[in-house]
Amino acid sequence: MAANRFGESYCFTTFGESHGKAVGVVIDGCPAGIPLDKEVIHQALHLRAPGQTPWTSPRKEPDHGELLSGVFSGVTTGAPIAFVVYNQDAKTSAYAGLKEIYRPGHANYTYLEKYGVFDYRGGGRASARETVGRVVAGAVANQFLISQGVQARAYLGQVGSIHCPGTIDADRILQSPIFCPDPVTEKKIITEIEQVLSQGDSLGGVVRYFAEGLPVGLGEPIYQKLEAKLASAMLSIPAAKGIEVGSGFASAEMTGSTHNDPYVMKEGRVKTKKNDAGGILAGISTGETLWGQVAFKPTSSIKQEQQSVSTKGTAVTFSLPPGSRHDPCVAIRAVPVVEAMLKCVLMDAFLQHRSSQA
Amino acid sequence: MAANRFGESYCFTTFGESHGKAVGVVIDGCPAGIPLDKEVIHQALHLRAPGQTPWTSPRKEPDHGELLSGVFSGVTTGAPIAFVVYNQDAKTSAYAGLKEIYRPGHANYTYLEKYGVFDYRGGGRASARETVGRVVAGAVANQFLISQGVQARAYLGQVGSIHCPGTIDADRILQSPIFCPDPVTEKKIITEIEQVLSQGDSLGGVVRYFAEGLPVGLGEPIYQKLEAKLASAMLSIPAAKGIEVGSGFASAEMTGSTHNDPYVMKEGRVKTKKNDAGGILAGISTGETLWGQVAFKPTSSIKQEQQSVSTKGTAVTFSLPPGSRHDPCVAIRAVPVVEAMLKCVLMDAFLQHRSSQA
Amino acid sequence: MAANRFGESYCFTTFGESHGKAVGVVIDGCPAGIPLDKEVIHQALHLRAPGQTPWTSPRKEPDHGELLSGVFSGVTTGAPIAFVVYNQDAKTSAYAGLKEIYRPGHANYTYLEKYGVFDYRGGGRASARETVGRVVAGAVANQFLISQGVQARAYLGQVGSIHCPGTIDADRILQSPIFCPDPVTEKKIITEIEQVLSQGDSLGGVVRYFAEGLPVGLGEPIYQKLEAKLASAMLSIPAAKGIEVGSGFASAEMTGSTHNDPYVMKEGRVKTKKNDAGGILAGISTGETLWGQVAFKPTSSIKQEQQSVSTKGTAVTFSLPPGSRHDPCVAIRAVPVVEAMLKCVLMDAFLQHRSSQA
Amino acid sequence: MAANRFGESYCFTTFGESHGKAVGVVIDGCPAGIPLDKEVIHQALHLRAPGQTPWTSPRKEPDHGELLSGVFSGVTTGAPIAFVVYNQDAKTSAYAGLKEIYRPGHANYTYLEKYGVFDYRGGGRASARETVGRVVAGAVANQFLISQGVQARAYLGQVGSIHCPGTIDADRILQSPIFCPDPVTEKKIITEIEQVLSQGDSLGGVVRYFAEGLPVGLGEPIYQKLEAKLASAMLSIPAAKGIEVGSGFASAEMTGSTHNDPYVMKEGRVKTKKNDAGGILAGISTGETLWGQVAFKPTSSIKQEQQSVSTKGTAVTFSLPPGSRHDPCVAIRAVPVVEAMLKCVLMDAFLQHRSSQA
Repeated sequence: MAANRFGESYCFTTFGESHGKAVGVVIDGCPAGIPLDKEVIHQALHLRAPGQTPWTSPRKEPDHGELLSGVFSGVTTGAPIAFVVYNQDAKTSAYAGLKEIYRPGHANYTYLEKYGVFDYRGGGRASARETVGRVVAGAVANQFLISQGVQARAYLGQVGSIHCPGTIDADRILQSPIFCPDPVTEKKIITEIEQVLSQGDSLGGVVRYFAEGLPVGLGEPIYQKLEAKLASAMLSIPAAKGIEVGSGFASAEMTGSTHNDPYVMKEGRVKTKKNDAGGILAGISTGETLWGQVAFKPTSSIKQEQQSVSTKGTAVTFSLPPGSRHDPCVAIRAVPVVEAMLKCVLMDAFLQHRSSQA
Repeated sequence: MAANRFGESYCFTTFGESHGKAVGVVIDGCPAGIPLDKEVIHQALHLRAPGQTPWTSPRKEPDHGELLSGVFSGVTTGAPIAFVVYNQDAKTSAYAGLKEIYRPGHANYTYLEKYGVFDYRGGGRASARETVGRVVAGAVANQFLISQGVQARAYLGQVGSIHCPGTIDADRILQSPIFCPDPVTEKKIITEIEQVLSQGDSLGGVVRYFAEGLPVGLGEPIYQKLEAKLASAMLSIPAAKGIEVGSGFASAEMTGSTHNDPYVMKEGRVKTKKNDAGGILAGISTGETLWGQVAFKPTSSIKQEQQSVSTKGTAVTFSLPPGSRHDPCVAIRAVPVVEAMLKCVLMDAFLQHRSSQA
Repeated sequence: MAANRFGESYCFTTFGESHGKAVGVVIDGCPAGIPLDKEVIHQALHLRAPGQTPWTSPRKEPDHGELLSGVFSGVTTGAPIAFVVYNQDAKTSAYAGLKEIYRPGHANYTYLEKYGVFDYRGGGRASARETVGRVVAGAVANQFLISQGVQARAYLGQVGSIHCPGTIDADRILQSPIFCPDPVTEKKIITEIEQVLSQGDSLGGVVRYFAEGLPVGLGEPIYQKLEAKLASAMLSIPAAKGIEVGSGFASAEMTGSTHNDPYVMKEGRVKTKKNDAGGILAGISTGETLWGQVAFKPTSSIKQEQQSVSTKGTAVTFSLPPGSRHDPCVAIRAVPVVEAMLKCVLMDAFLQHRSSQA
Repeated sequence: MAANRFGESYCFTTFGESHGKAVGVVIDGCPAGIPLDKEVIHQALHLRAPGQTPWTSPRKEPDHGELLSGVFSGVTTGAPIAFVVYNQDAKTSAYAGLKEIYRPGHANYTYLEKYGVFDYRGGGRASARETVGRVVAGAVANQFLISQGVQARAYLGQVGSIHCPGTIDADRILQSPIFCPDPVTEKKIITEIEQVLSQGDSLGGVVRYFAEGLPVGLGEPIYQKLEAKLASAMLSIPAAKGIEVGSGFASAEMTGSTHNDPYVMKEGRVKTKKNDAGGILAGISTGETLWGQVAFKPTSSIKQEQQSVSTKGTAVTFSLPPGSRHDPCVAIRAVPVVEAMLKCVLMDAFLQHRSSQA
């Protein structure tokens, strides 16, 4: 089933395996006239690239790619935008010994059962390397969002039991090697990660997202509600296990009188006093800040010895080989991916909204 | 934008407004040969119908509908299945006084801004009455799932701060007027609801879902992953604010060594010792129980006096009229809807999976 | 496979069988603010209704339907528009004797093989009665097209070997009981039909379509080109066997120097001197008249004795029972359907075009 | 609007401009387990490559591409298959002088009006070079079709007024440099082309297609009928102006008694005596040979002097520069493209059909 495509009006299809020749994306539906060059994309890719800090995977991929189509005279032309990144630092041999072991939390059992064949090298198609294409699509979408006055962002909100405060300084997100805008929290998290790394283990985490400057009206009832689109987008990211919009699960413990956001007039515009809704009502943006968070499970690849079964059905005990490279906490590198998906969802919603009225 | 359609291979489109002539659904993509009659659908609709207990909306809708097409000689024919329910107990006049007030937590502000027109009567298209069509589609899907040995269910897992225990007896779900299979919890919740009702307020809640008997292999990577499909399905339900798959947000606080589900052989089959993954790895079903939960905000319609602004931009204080009818806790009536969406997602995944191998 | 839906941005799903309870349509993606009432739809349906002349099927269906949703205060609301027509004059018993004979040119063999079950009554889902939904969708689209200054029409261009002249008076189309705007041709065709009817036989024909007032720019390269959308639309109509855009197959016999339409300036606008292209270049409307034609095979149901095989694989000779009712030339009643599909394609193209530029 | 994607279950997206960096395709929805390597694709590409005969464009593109993803251990994996061909022999400077002239029959006027920007070099996105991606997708589909016993082919059926006989020897198609299996016709066509070439003019033509070995049951009523899918596929090919299925427009001149194909039993199977239907009834394959034809207009780029207007709205007379390279008859090089689209349509239909029965 064709399932590697995301979005309706602004739509992209990703391709490529972790240790194949290349990963990439084709964006279909981008309007003409948006300023775009390779540099814009490279800057976005740089943020998700591995090998940059001790707290992410040591695989080094410069992720310099080629912009193959869809841009002329410095602007998008309305034609599909293809971007391809050739893989370089793929150390496949490290994994050969594992190909006959079903790895807990990993893709190989389900892929093999589903397809009868699995490109096991580096996780193949199930690798987080697929997210390169998402980040490219997000970077292109962002060029449009900027022109609409929209700022869409994500940051690391939690690792293990360490939570970032609710109010943050967005300017500090990119100053942190782990996308954590609060210096105190950042320090605690890094200490925690180093502790867990030393035990050959991994950690889960939470990524928060928000968007400011949105107009009222984005999101298409009923099945393309903004929250449904976001949920689909975020839960398609590897290792994601949950999403909240606005006060999310906490709203289950609230009453209507405390959860409802009262309308008020501010500077001649309808606003809400507070924003437990997270910027969406009935699937449509309210013009308030869109916000929420996404939960990520701990990286399934850990250095500790694990018990499992082989593809032949025998019990095995195994460890990852010394050369294998993994993120100790996928939530960190998921930050630019969550941000990219948020941007793609919003851009799609902008285009869809153009058909709301005659 | 066309957005009233859900699903890819098993696909349905809903229509109708709360106080319009009718609500209904057209199911497209249902395979031929599935036993179906009106009774199967009526039984499912009966569970979501309002007016049956003191703890749900007193609007009385028998929800007896007409099966217009797609069935011949007692089985589906492969042609679209249309089902329509004519509205009966619509008391529109009760709402006329509110049409010029932006109601907190309600759809009218965003719909009016988006479309320039809003059928305000009973919430119009944004009403939970739209979910009639989902329940019909779920009932049809269930006929197929039963033939595959799949049992897909939902129940009330939490209201306010009262949680249902983790282990439940599925047979007790339908014995409870609030779909809460644990008698002690049920009693506490009813007490809490009565308390809140007496204050003219409402409560949030959580609906849990699970499916047993699934094969390995359902779910299409990358953007049609089972969790992404579920997330999109559940967050399209009115008042939903979050979804978890498996251990969800709790997994953010776990380590890889505790979260990973070790594989073991049981009776000649590959199984996992525990199931924090919630029955999905890399977007594909593992054959273990699929499970998770969905958060619902408290009903936005409350009887207490609220502050807001009018459509003309002036501050107003308003109360809902005495005759207005609402659920004190939408999570209760969301139970059959969550279950229906789960069934539709699974059926869609079954059909999509048929194209996995040559 | 879900296949009863047409269109992308302006999208409709039809349902219903010829002798089932009802036929109908749900339109999804219609922008808000378009004036619409039941009368507009009834007028369009009236033109495709059978039983009005001696030269079309004598089945009498008033085709008065119900507008179930999507309209409020006289305008569309952006919500789905459902329209249902209950079947009345279905004489099923006339067909019972035929259900075990594979009828040449008919749907029953292929449907039975595909689905394992076939609602044979009146052709079931394969009946031209399905086109009721198309005509409704076309009527709604037309309300929008009128506001854009677009006139989209169809007429009977040929029956058997009798051709309508190339230049016609569009005002005369509806004055003809067979939608043939040229009185001389009309007379010849009617004579021919009566002759063939008396022999228990049927005739093929050609429907021409055109649209005036289109802007430059409609149609989305590459796979949603205007001609590709039209082709898909027209070849989905029962009995259609071919389509041409502009000079069509005749262009195969032309040279580039004769086929190319030279650009000229007229009243300050870019126009072409002639229009062999049929108003489309590279999939995009040129602003000239869109035109082309659709071929329809002769009605497969004829009163003459025919040879065939039974569902049990034995040779049979059969005749349709005396009470059976058929169009002697489906091309006549296809005229309003071709026109409806043209309108739906154009409306879809208008909405899609809104996302062409940033 | 996202419009560079074709197909539902077997789906591909093309990208790239004629004189951009590369052209290519991403195939999504290909089942796992199909034998595939680069050689299979190169063989198919070789047939559509320009520069091979005096009667096609002299542009020389070896069209050796890279298979970037989706294949492992010699078989497809179910993951997207990306194939990219870097452009080499692009002589852009030849076109620079034309960029301010609206060229009759060409894409530049409509693209510029639609998008506000046009990559004019070699026709940009509107170039037939886009069809490289289609041929790749067709070659992959063919690997599947072969395993199903299906042979899908196309050949040159007509150029100008010269027609190929109705019965041909399929083995001779690839022996002809112009894909014309009848040697006498081939010779006449080549003479005609040389004549027209010497006049700086071009010719239209017709491509015939057929498929043998199909099962009964392919094609999804109503809007994914096999003929509707074919029509959409073929009319999306550059320069296509018409399509027929079976007896096509000729059926408009037939009666039901002559057009209907009588069923007979042959070797225990239901067959038809003749096949005017072209292998499709009611949108579903009958198991007989699928056949029809596609009309192509003459190449719009001709060497003769032409009249037009400039982008500034002034009348101009222009000729293509001496170095410009064009096909004298696009129908010749359209043959492998028609064949590719036929294969993609059939493969898609095979996958869709898997969901017909429960």
